[in-house]
Amino acid sequence: MNDFNKLDAADMAFFQQLCGEKRAVPGATVNDDYCHDELAGIHRRPEILLQPATTDEVAAIMRYASAHRLPVTPRGQGTGLVGGAVPLYGGILLDLSGMNRILELDEANLTLTVESGVLLMDVIKFVEEKGLFYPPDPGEKSATIGGNINTNAGGMRAVKYGVTRDYVRGLEVVLADGRVIELGGKVVKTSSGYSLKDLLVGSEGTLGVVTKVILRLLPLPRRKLSLLVPFPTLDQAIDTVPQIVKSRTIPTAVEFMQREVILAAEQFLGRKFPDKSADAYLLLTFDGNSREEIEQSYHEVAEICLAAGAIDAFISNTEERNEAIWSARGAFLEAIKASTTELDECDVVVPRKNVGEFIRFTHQLQQKHGVRIRSFGHAGDGNLHVYVLRDQLAQADWEAKLTAVFAEMYAMARRLDGKVSGEHGIGYAKERYLSDSVGPDQLALMRGIKAVFDPAGILNPGKICAAESEV
Amino acid sequence: MNDFNKLDAADMAFFQQLCGEKRAVPGATVNDDYCHDELAGIHRRPEILLQPATTDEVAAIMRYASAHRLPVTPRGQGTGLVGGAVPLYGGILLDLSGMNRILELDEANLTLTVESGVLLMDVIKFVEEKGLFYPPDPGEKSATIGGNINTNAGGMRAVKYGVTRDYVRGLEVVLADGRVIELGGKVVKTSSGYSLKDLLVGSEGTLGVVTKVILRLLPLPRRKLSLLVPFPTLDQAIDTVPQIVKSRTIPTAVEFMQREVILAAEQFLGRKFPDKSADAYLLLTFDGNSREEIEQSYHEVAEICLAAGAIDAFISNTEERNEAIWSARGAFLEAIKASTTELDECDVVVPRKNVGEFIRFTHQLQQKHGVRIRSFGHAGDGNLHVYVLRDQLAQADWEAKLTAVFAEMYAMARRLDGKVSGEHGIGYAKERYLSDSVGPDQLALMRGIKAVFDPAGILNPGKICAAESEV
Repeated sequence: MNDFNKLDAADMAFFQQLCGEKRAVPGATVNDDYCHDELAGIHRRPEILLQPATTDEVAAIMRYASAHRLPVTPRGQGTGLVGGAVPLYGGILLDLSGMNRILELDEANLTLTVESGVLLMDVIKFVEEKGLFYPPDPGEKSATIGGNINTNAGGMRAVKYGVTRDYVRGLEVVLADGRVIELGGKVVKTSSGYSLKDLLVGSEGTLGVVTKVILRLLPLPRRKLSLLVPFPTLDQAIDTVPQIVKSRTIPTAVEFMQREVILAAEQFLGRKFPDKSADAYLLLTFDGNSREEIEQSYHEVAEICLAAGAIDAFISNTEERNEAIWSARGAFLEAIKASTTELDECDVVVPRKNVGEFIRFTHQLQQKHGVRIRSFGHAGDGNLHVYVLRDQLAQADWEAKLTAVFAEMYAMARRLDGKVSGEHGIGYAKERYLSDSVGPDQLALMRGIKAVFDPAGILNPGKICAAESEV
Repeated sequence: MNDFNKLDAADMAFFQQLCGEKRAVPGATVNDDYCHDELAGIHRRPEILLQPATTDEVAAIMRYASAHRLPVTPRGQGTGLVGGAVPLYGGILLDLSGMNRILELDEANLTLTVESGVLLMDVIKFVEEKGLFYPPDPGEKSATIGGNINTNAGGMRAVKYGVTRDYVRGLEVVLADGRVIELGGKVVKTSSGYSLKDLLVGSEGTLGVVTKVILRLLPLPRRKLSLLVPFPTLDQAIDTVPQIVKSRTIPTAVEFMQREVILAAEQFLGRKFPDKSADAYLLLTFDGNSREEIEQSYHEVAEICLAAGAIDAFISNTEERNEAIWSARGAFLEAIKASTTELDECDVVVPRKNVGEFIRFTHQLQQKHGVRIRSFGHAGDGNLHVYVLRDQLAQADWEAKLTAVFAEMYAMARRLDGKVSGEHGIGYAKERYLSDSVGPDQLALMRGIKAVFDPAGILNPGKICAAESEV
């Protein structure tokens, strides 16, 4: 399938004419940052970097690429963790981060219309200043909203509020051949044929290029607080979560963290975490409009935790304390990164009551394979971030151990009725695990759908469900 | 494409062997109820009615149907309003209402696993007895949950809680050729390839047969109340809704109703509505766990309504009063039906601030075309139910007027950025309007997807996006 053409001088001239020379950069002079995302070990140079400013330009690029069989890899801010924005086959790297206008706040429909290159942090800032709320809360706030949509990004507040998919009302999409379609809209519900919008969400740039987005907003909750609960052991902490779920109190977020990860974060940030008495912690948040309801919720949860062996339950409702806790939580990935030479990540999601079993299994793997494994994650929604650290391992040893550890982890996730990725996507790095997880029937359906949207296979080739020979 | 075979004696014998004679009924003796749904005017007899009891039986039926090119129309309780469960091409009518077991309540994951033939009312009863909540609230409680999933049924609580799609965590699906796949699961989030689950939701039995479902539950809110607000005119009532949305108070439901529909419901039910002083009403509900929050919400909303010209605002928090109001609301469709000889329905959804304009337009159409038009609906989510009534019109006149009125209504819905169906689906009756609404590019994508799942086109042929020649 992938008999792509290489860009020639005429192609270069076309694109430089279309976008202007500043926004059509030949591959040789492209900044190295554009050759990878946050996944280590995969690095490819595009033949050209294009930075379109309008949907019309994107459409013209796709029409041309389609007619000339040039591969196109859409990219937001390159903050992905699975190689999704790496131009595996060279060709065109389509940087959408310049399409970053906030177009319309519609208060009578509670929607925000933006171009897909707007940063998540800018969406948050814009709506919160107006007393509105965009609930999805992926850790990486400098990602583009288009990137969030393409990975169906999750974040901590999924427990109560769901994920990016739940807040996408409408999309403008440029198809592989340059046609522009509009999916969904400002309507609250629809039963009008197959939900192409939901198919595009999470499709990682393989079915179309998202250029415009209508987001659903909520009113900003008036009150929130955090609860930091130290436990003697990680097992006790994690096994308390299904009891919280059973209690029918719904926190906004339930994170788990281990002492060693907290210490790494302290070192990385150069500032103290408010409590280090324990081996493991649950960190919960609650939000709402009524003091009565929030108080009732956290009292109930605190009691469940204490009955389950928690050492204490600290309420954090001052700016200063929240900042100390959440800046540490926000720095976990960077701190783990800084503590080793290289790492790779497993982002599985399992049913919430199976989180404990999965984490215990990763501890066994650490012993068995002699590699350091660190984890933290969203205990409240079953989505774990497990990092395998290279430290001083030689290249061949590292690769062998990583392969062996990942094979066991993903097999265990399947046995526990889990999925390959909770929120980071499949990209290039997790294709083999997706294939094992969904099996040949679903893989064939996905490939069939890909062929319907992109018969020539030019859109982000080599991602999600590419034929195995290509990977 | 539709060169289906007719069932012969060998086919009959195979199915009677597979399901037993009681659950494999030859077309000639099939009860007339199975030849239609709640859409008037379309009536087709299947060649055989099959009532499978297990997924294995469904799989065996599909394998055989696929090998022998027999059309298969899945059916729940036949409560649909767009002909979705009518066996347009004869063949097999696959009645799933016998697969109605509740399989598992998982309290640690807040999920309920059921077979797809379970009735919505039985799901509601089962979970509410346990203090749990299945928020989607379509009016027709005797529909199957499989039918709800296939139409992505909505209901009144969409304003606050969303629709059926938002509560489907996992599906077991039998494909057109009899293979069985499992989509999603008990996990709270996933970014693991294209969301086939979301593609199946709302696909009206054209992509696969849903046999098992994992539903997401919430804790049952501890408090709720209704607010009935009379207005001097319908315009004032409806135009208040965008102001409520803007106020950032989120009611659970916001319905609008007109005096004439209320009177019809009174007559139909033989009981009194608590207030008839006004020409139009908004009926709102609020729910939650905290008295403080609910009180604050309805006070805010009541003040907005009074400032917008409402005559009064009646709080309804007694069983008796709620019953009087909601039994009337629940009887609207039946009451309108009983008031005429035949009717057809338009279920468009528009952005919330455009509801008033759409309803005013239907009033003009009533004058212009000389037909009675009645409406009620979900002002809070923009989904309207507009009924064109035949009354004493002769057949040809009725057909001509209905076609003309619908053409104008659906064109207006498009101009107002609306969609063909908010919650009833496309089925057979709304195909032409879907085609006009989404245009050729999206229609081609939908047809391509259909061909990926069902290359021979045997699954519910003639629905959603069939080639025009077939309709």
